[in-house]
Amino acid sequence: MSANFVKNALGRLVPTEVNGVPQIPYMGVGKYKPIRRKYAPLISSCADYPADGNKTEPGLKDALIKSGLRDGMVISTHHHFRNGDLVAIQIFDIAKELGIKDLVWVPSASFECQSVLIKYLEDGTIHHIEGSMNGSLGRFTSQGKMKGMGILRSHGGRYQAIQDGEVIIDIAVIAAPTADAFGNATGDRGPTACGLLGFALADSQYANKVIVVTDNLVPFPCIPWQIQGNNVDYVVVVAQVGIPEKIVSGTTEITKSPDRLLLAEWTSQFCDEAGIIRDGFSFQAGAGGTALSIGIYFADILRQRGMKARWARGGSNKYLVKMLEDGLVENILDGQTFDLEGVRSMRENFGHVNTSPFTSYNYHGKGNFASMVDVVILGATEVDVNYNANVVTHSDGTLLHGIGGWQNCIASKCTILPIPLFRDRMPIVREEVTTICGPGELIDVIVTERGIAINPLRKDLIEKMKNSSLPIKTINQLKDEAEAICGVPDKPKFTNKPVAVVKWVDGTIIDTIWQLDD
Amino acid sequence: MSANFVKNALGRLVPTEVNGVPQIPYMGVGKYKPIRRKYAPLISSCADYPADGNKTEPGLKDALIKSGLRDGMVISTHHHFRNGDLVAIQIFDIAKELGIKDLVWVPSASFECQSVLIKYLEDGTIHHIEGSMNGSLGRFTSQGKMKGMGILRSHGGRYQAIQDGEVIIDIAVIAAPTADAFGNATGDRGPTACGLLGFALADSQYANKVIVVTDNLVPFPCIPWQIQGNNVDYVVVVAQVGIPEKIVSGTTEITKSPDRLLLAEWTSQFCDEAGIIRDGFSFQAGAGGTALSIGIYFADILRQRGMKARWARGGSNKYLVKMLEDGLVENILDGQTFDLEGVRSMRENFGHVNTSPFTSYNYHGKGNFASMVDVVILGATEVDVNYNANVVTHSDGTLLHGIGGWQNCIASKCTILPIPLFRDRMPIVREEVTTICGPGELIDVIVTERGIAINPLRKDLIEKMKNSSLPIKTINQLKDEAEAICGVPDKPKFTNKPVAVVKWVDGTIIDTIWQLDD
Repeated sequence: MSANFVKNALGRLVPTEVNGVPQIPYMGVGKYKPIRRKYAPLISSCADYPADGNKTEPGLKDALIKSGLRDGMVISTHHHFRNGDLVAIQIFDIAKELGIKDLVWVPSASFECQSVLIKYLEDGTIHHIEGSMNGSLGRFTSQGKMKGMGILRSHGGRYQAIQDGEVIIDIAVIAAPTADAFGNATGDRGPTACGLLGFALADSQYANKVIVVTDNLVPFPCIPWQIQGNNVDYVVVVAQVGIPEKIVSGTTEITKSPDRLLLAEWTSQFCDEAGIIRDGFSFQAGAGGTALSIGIYFADILRQRGMKARWARGGSNKYLVKMLEDGLVENILDGQTFDLEGVRSMRENFGHVNTSPFTSYNYHGKGNFASMVDVVILGATEVDVNYNANVVTHSDGTLLHGIGGWQNCIASKCTILPIPLFRDRMPIVREEVTTICGPGELIDVIVTERGIAINPLRKDLIEKMKNSSLPIKTINQLKDEAEAICGVPDKPKFTNKPVAVVKWVDGTIIDTIWQLDD
Repeated sequence: MSANFVKNALGRLVPTEVNGVPQIPYMGVGKYKPIRRKYAPLISSCADYPADGNKTEPGLKDALIKSGLRDGMVISTHHHFRNGDLVAIQIFDIAKELGIKDLVWVPSASFECQSVLIKYLEDGTIHHIEGSMNGSLGRFTSQGKMKGMGILRSHGGRYQAIQDGEVIIDIAVIAAPTADAFGNATGDRGPTACGLLGFALADSQYANKVIVVTDNLVPFPCIPWQIQGNNVDYVVVVAQVGIPEKIVSGTTEITKSPDRLLLAEWTSQFCDEAGIIRDGFSFQAGAGGTALSIGIYFADILRQRGMKARWARGGSNKYLVKMLEDGLVENILDGQTFDLEGVRSMRENFGHVNTSPFTSYNYHGKGNFASMVDVVILGATEVDVNYNANVVTHSDGTLLHGIGGWQNCIASKCTILPIPLFRDRMPIVREEVTTICGPGELIDVIVTERGIAINPLRKDLIEKMKNSSLPIKTINQLKDEAEAICGVPDKPKFTNKPVAVVKWVDGTIIDTIWQLDD
């Protein structure tokens, strides 16, 4: 790869071109403002669609052929079925059968269940992936084996890129737990209910051709219509679109680890002492065991004081649903359901609302929900002394995770990362992170089992916590403690070949992921 | 006005240019297919919007000035408050105060309550109106007094025109019964609840600047968000956005006229004998007294036979809501609520669903709901022997009504117009209509108190009704009977100056409205 490189505003070396397309280096938070127009899809005409609304095709192959599937096309899928998706692989099996080459796959995220697609990355059916690459697909990429360069985006960044025409999707395939023949589709009901379909919203709005694949066809109208049939070209009925048990995220139980419980306790105590937990506040906690435990602490505090939160952002789960149904939080603005209680609640509770990356995360909108959240609690694989954080690579340099909504969420009023100081004797707080996913200026607090560091930019928080009983330290103290125990970690060894880039929420490149040298 | 004219596919003389913009003459149903892209709004950035989501401005004037209000701009409003709107006039009072000239007003419809704006049409504050012109504004236009030419569009045609960039809105002002400071807004609750805000959807998606005006500001999040705050620039709180009693449409009671009851009875009998009323069927009846009565007959038939309709299209009213709550119809897909029972039902009933001109009517989508309706019952001011129908002008040539969803609805599987054979001794069925709003090929059945005419194109319906006891006649028989009673009507006298055009659902011009010569 002969790309040229420039240093971006964080001093990271990033390519000026990715897969032949010129790129803009990260310029700082809120610094890059495009002066151009959104992507404009072609105008359709009802004259080209069946008047009776019946868009069904016998099979996915028919629909793909009618959509004009050919070499080099950009194909998108969503990940609401997580590790239980049964549709994405079928698309590329069909492409292989038809002898199609050099497809670009744009999933909202890929999972281990899709690692069989490595064979199509190897044989040229798929040229490269733009989207999260978890597990094996990430490792394959890190090893430099993917033909093209990977492009990692947050959920909001993916919406932004599609809206702005940075990714032009030829064919979107939307797996739907329930749909009608017109293409109206919902994720909140049906035998394989997964909750929402918001990750496919941009695809439905901007893709040239849109195929809805369902295993539960209902008479028109499918209500609610999370995906609007007016954006859909074809509807295909298959035996099963997803495996319900695998839709559920791995971490749906609160942690039992004493270290993690300590992180949860300190984080909630911090929020309380900093005055964040108050009547009408808002919060977002992720799906991990620590985050779930923090939700429990929040609920206890609210219950004791007779207060309630105005809204919480989901990923929803049974704990958040219980808070809603107990009246401790008035609304869940949900982006994806992490368990089946979340799915049930979406159907039953008026205050459990279907959101999308457009409403919640799109940085190229007229504001979004993420910056309005009072406190967000997230994870990280590494944090450095400048509070820059990494969520995609491990300290050995291997790409193993997607960004999810993480980059979007750190726009909140207070972003807290409760993380262990080290994992497997590898320091998590360090001099420099392997990959910067979020700039330090947006990370406010690091909570570890050896102490809590507050970003020096947050003088207000430092002032509020000056008499706290919590062990407030500097980030350098935490790094030194980690290194005192584990030693100074070696840097991972890379070649000079970039294998993927990490986009910032505005479409600029915040960092590069390099080929492992081993 | 020096526009040139051409004859369109219906033989009507239409201008080749309107207000300086080249136009396409009507080419036939489904014949015009634009090969171009939708309108692409400018890309926004969250960096330019308050992170805490508070977009409130002290007043509408501030918001209009911040939106860059200046000469020649295109300003849009919606008509969900119908004759009780209190916001549109304020916009132009402010424009007048600021000395702004030549604005184009694009309401989804205008009503008598806005006739005071005639002074601004006269003094040059407003150049012309694109949108329905009911009553006095229509008469003003017919008299040739408006500076520019009026453009009449259906609800779906308005969405199409905004989506396709045929109307580029500079500032949309959206009056909302409930909203939050971020701009999320809903019509289904609040002291001035009007049900929906769907007529403002296109405006919110495509206008350069969007101002939400509300009299009921609630803490974020306003749920449901019929209008998404992510599309909104400014929020203004005023004392009152609409007068609830006037939101209610005039005709909300079933007819007591024996002639109209006969039309209703024959129409429902026709539907029954033609096999249209069956388990799972769908229908749309308008808001008039006759249409309401037909709904009652449908309900009786369904109840007697233990059947139910799968869906009905609203305008909703207390009769349709009762059918929903009695289990005689499973879903109301609502476009506007005609009474407060409709508003209540929208809030309370899962099956009473918020739709928009995009889902229901946009001809430049991938299908729409209108063509899927089994039977639609509509009115008309005139019908001719070719089944062409008029809904905007009276037989004296005066523009007095908007198109509403009428043009969109006639795409249904069976379109029935129950109309009196004459009104005030003026034949309604005639040789030629004053203005063609809908081509005869889409009008299937005319029901009058002297007989029923079936469009010869509908051989299937003629066959089904051949043994009917209903008085089936030809359209020419009906015309002859009307003329035998009333005499052959004089044609209205026009000058050769066009004052407005009627767009077809695809953006082409189906007919011209001429200046009255009197």
